[in-house]
Amino acid sequence: MRVIGFDPGTATTGYGVVERQGSRLHYRAHGVITTPAGMPFAERLVCIHAEVAALLEVHRPDGASIEKLYFTKNVTTGIAVAQARGVIALAIAQAGLPIGEFSPLEVKGAVVGYGKATKRQVQEMLKVLLNLDAIPKPDDAADALAVAICQLNAGAFHKAIERG
Amino acid sequence: MRVIGFDPGTATTGYGVVERQGSRLHYRAHGVITTPAGMPFAERLVCIHAEVAALLEVHRPDGASIEKLYFTKNVTTGIAVAQARGVIALAIAQAGLPIGEFSPLEVKGAVVGYGKATKRQVQEMLKVLLNLDAIPKPDDAADALAVAICQLNAGAFHKAIERG
Repeated sequence: MRVIGFDPGTATTGYGVVERQGSRLHYRAHGVITTPAGMPFAERLVCIHAEVAALLEVHRPDGASIEKLYFTKNVTTGIAVAQARGVIALAIAQAGLPIGEFSPLEVKGAVVGYGKATKRQVQEMLKVLLNLDAIPKPDDAADALAVAICQLNAGAFHKAIERG
Repeated sequence: MRVIGFDPGTATTGYGVVERQGSRLHYRAHGVITTPAGMPFAERLVCIHAEVAALLEVHRPDGASIEKLYFTKNVTTGIAVAQARGVIALAIAQAGLPIGEFSPLEVKGAVVGYGKATKRQVQEMLKVLLNLDAIPKPDDAADALAVAICQLNAGAFHKAIERG
C-alpha cells in the first residue's frame, strides 16, 4: 500500500510518499510545492491544486493523508492554510482516493510512539524508519512523510483488528 | 458588468448574481448550493467546486466576489468554511475571473451605507436596490447578493476615480 502525505501551506506545501510492504516501510519520494510570494492568492490555489493532481498521477498512491488543522496563534495565516488544505483535499477526492486525517498528536504517536515528541525526534525517527542517509528536508516535506506513515500504520492497525 | 457573489459554507453556500447597467443594479439570480449532511467532507468539496464551476458557466459573470473570513466563535466550523472558500476561489480563478474580497464591514457599507447595519437592514436594502417583491431567501443567498453588490459598487467607485 502506497500513501502520499501532505502538509498544506499557501507558500509551501510539503508532500511525502511512503509504501508499506508487509511490516516494512519504504521511502518513495518527498518534496515541496512552492508558489511565488507575489502571486495572487487564488492563483496560488490553482497552482497547488494542479501540482497535487500531477503528484497523484505520477506516484499513483492508494490513499492520501493530511494533518488536521488547529488554529491557536495566527488566525489570518490559519484561514489561508485552511483554504490551501481545501484545494488539496479536493484534488485527492477528485482522483477518487480515500483521505486520512490525523491530529499532530496522532502523527507523532505513529512515528515516534509518543504524541508529545519534538520535531527533531520525529525527523530522526523518519530517517530510521525510512532508511534514509539524512534527515528529510525541508520541514514541510518531513511533516508530510510523517502523516503518510501515520495513515499506513493506521491502515495496518485496522487490518490487524479485522483479522482478529 | 455582471458579478456573482458567494457566501461560503460546507452545508450551504449562497450565491447571488447582480448586474450593473449605468448606475442601476439589476437582479439576475440567487440561490444555494447544498451538500447532504452525511456526505464525507472531501466529497462535499468536490460538489461545491463542480456547482460553482457550473454557475459560472450558466451566468457568465465578469467577476466574482466572496466575503473575507474572520473567525471569532467556532474555530472548527471556521476551518471547514475556509476550506470550502478555498475551492470556490479555485473554481473562480480556474475560470479566469477576477475575485473581489470584502470584509463584512465593507459589504454592509456598500449596501446600507453603514458598516454596522443589522442583517435585517441589509436584506431590506437588497429588496429596494434590486427591485424585488420580497426579501431574498435564505440568508446565505441574501449575503451573497450583498457581496456581489459590494464588488459592483467598488468597481464603479474605481472607474469614477480613473475618470477623474
